[in-house]
Amino acid sequence: MTIALYYSPGACSFAPHVVLREIGLAFELREFSTADRSNYSPEYLAINPKGRIPALLIDGFVLTENPAILAYLGRKYEAAGLYPFDASEDEARCLELLAWSSNTVHVAYAQILRPEWFVPSEQEYPPVQASGRGNFQQGLPEIDAHLARSRFAVGNRFTVVDPFWLVFFRWGVRQGYQMKELYPSYSRYVDTVCERPAVGRALEAEGISIWP
Amino acid sequence: MTIALYYSPGACSFAPHVVLREIGLAFELREFSTADRSNYSPEYLAINPKGRIPALLIDGFVLTENPAILAYLGRKYEAAGLYPFDASEDEARCLELLAWSSNTVHVAYAQILRPEWFVPSEQEYPPVQASGRGNFQQGLPEIDAHLARSRFAVGNRFTVVDPFWLVFFRWGVRQGYQMKELYPSYSRYVDTVCERPAVGRALEAEGISIWP
Repeated sequence: MTIALYYSPGACSFAPHVVLREIGLAFELREFSTADRSNYSPEYLAINPKGRIPALLIDGFVLTENPAILAYLGRKYEAAGLYPFDASEDEARCLELLAWSSNTVHVAYAQILRPEWFVPSEQEYPPVQASGRGNFQQGLPEIDAHLARSRFAVGNRFTVVDPFWLVFFRWGVRQGYQMKELYPSYSRYVDTVCERPAVGRALEAEGISIWP
Repeated sequence: MTIALYYSPGACSFAPHVVLREIGLAFELREFSTADRSNYSPEYLAINPKGRIPALLIDGFVLTENPAILAYLGRKYEAAGLYPFDASEDEARCLELLAWSSNTVHVAYAQILRPEWFVPSEQEYPPVQASGRGNFQQGLPEIDAHLARSRFAVGNRFTVVDPFWLVFFRWGVRQGYQMKELYPSYSRYVDTVCERPAVGRALEAEGISIWP
């Protein structure tokens, strides 16, 4: 059975990319770069009419929406231990952080990179982007404070949330924020997470790095 | 054990409100109206520092983020049959639609009602709201087309996604859209969903109606 991840280098698709490698699945990477808008090509729109990255082909169907892909992979491949089980508080937290990462932190970053989603004309992009930078910089210290109290996003165990947070850290670096100085707990956590072989291999396969 | 839902009348908290009644749980409704910003009162910020509605007190902890609350309730109270099980394609779809409803449709509506989340100053609200109306009106026909093919959001069974979509329909009515004419499948579905006793009781308890 074919498993394929439709991704763009460094996009939030990096999170399920890491998870697929953590589970140890054989899968194909199919690149549709958002930088050149090939996620809006007819070929990709046939996969995901919304044009959003990522999409996952699995079990003979295509699944979109990062929180859904991450939770689904975690639930399905239980033995990999990337998702808390049994409707526990940990599972609740996992779902909560996936939702918040998607509807708040990621949306803030979209204001910076895709202001056209929020206002009709180019002259209005700068205030949307300024507000997006403010919102994104409210999310990062929240993550930092969370990681000052907790080894990983959810307790002491690496879960499907963590590679999503790794993406945000890298985006912060790319925005030019002094991540180590501003967010020391988040930075130490990223160092730990990057020691995982699956993370190293995913970075290499996408041709990206956390630091410039 | 106390279960309490922190809600605002007609907000997206209506979805878990319906779900609690569908399950048949005893719970308290604790109102913090977003209309008068009491969701930013010290009393509510002590419950949810993000100030967002809803929050659910359950199992001795507070859970936020609507997609997480809905999936958690569905998973925990399996016997109510409001959530597909066993990492099936139906569960994947449920998670996908919860994520999309939250990060796309709800965000579009927030642009209309809460433009201050997206731009710093009042003079820039109108273009954000105009774009929000456009985005929201892209979501509604997607739901309508989905419901032309499928009895409920996920197949032939009422799940935790459906009361979330009921909220969007009501918001469309309140925006003055001709919902019956524009979205006939969505409208028929809402008629069916509103026949559920739990939905009727939740509307009554919040003092709201779908139609004006």
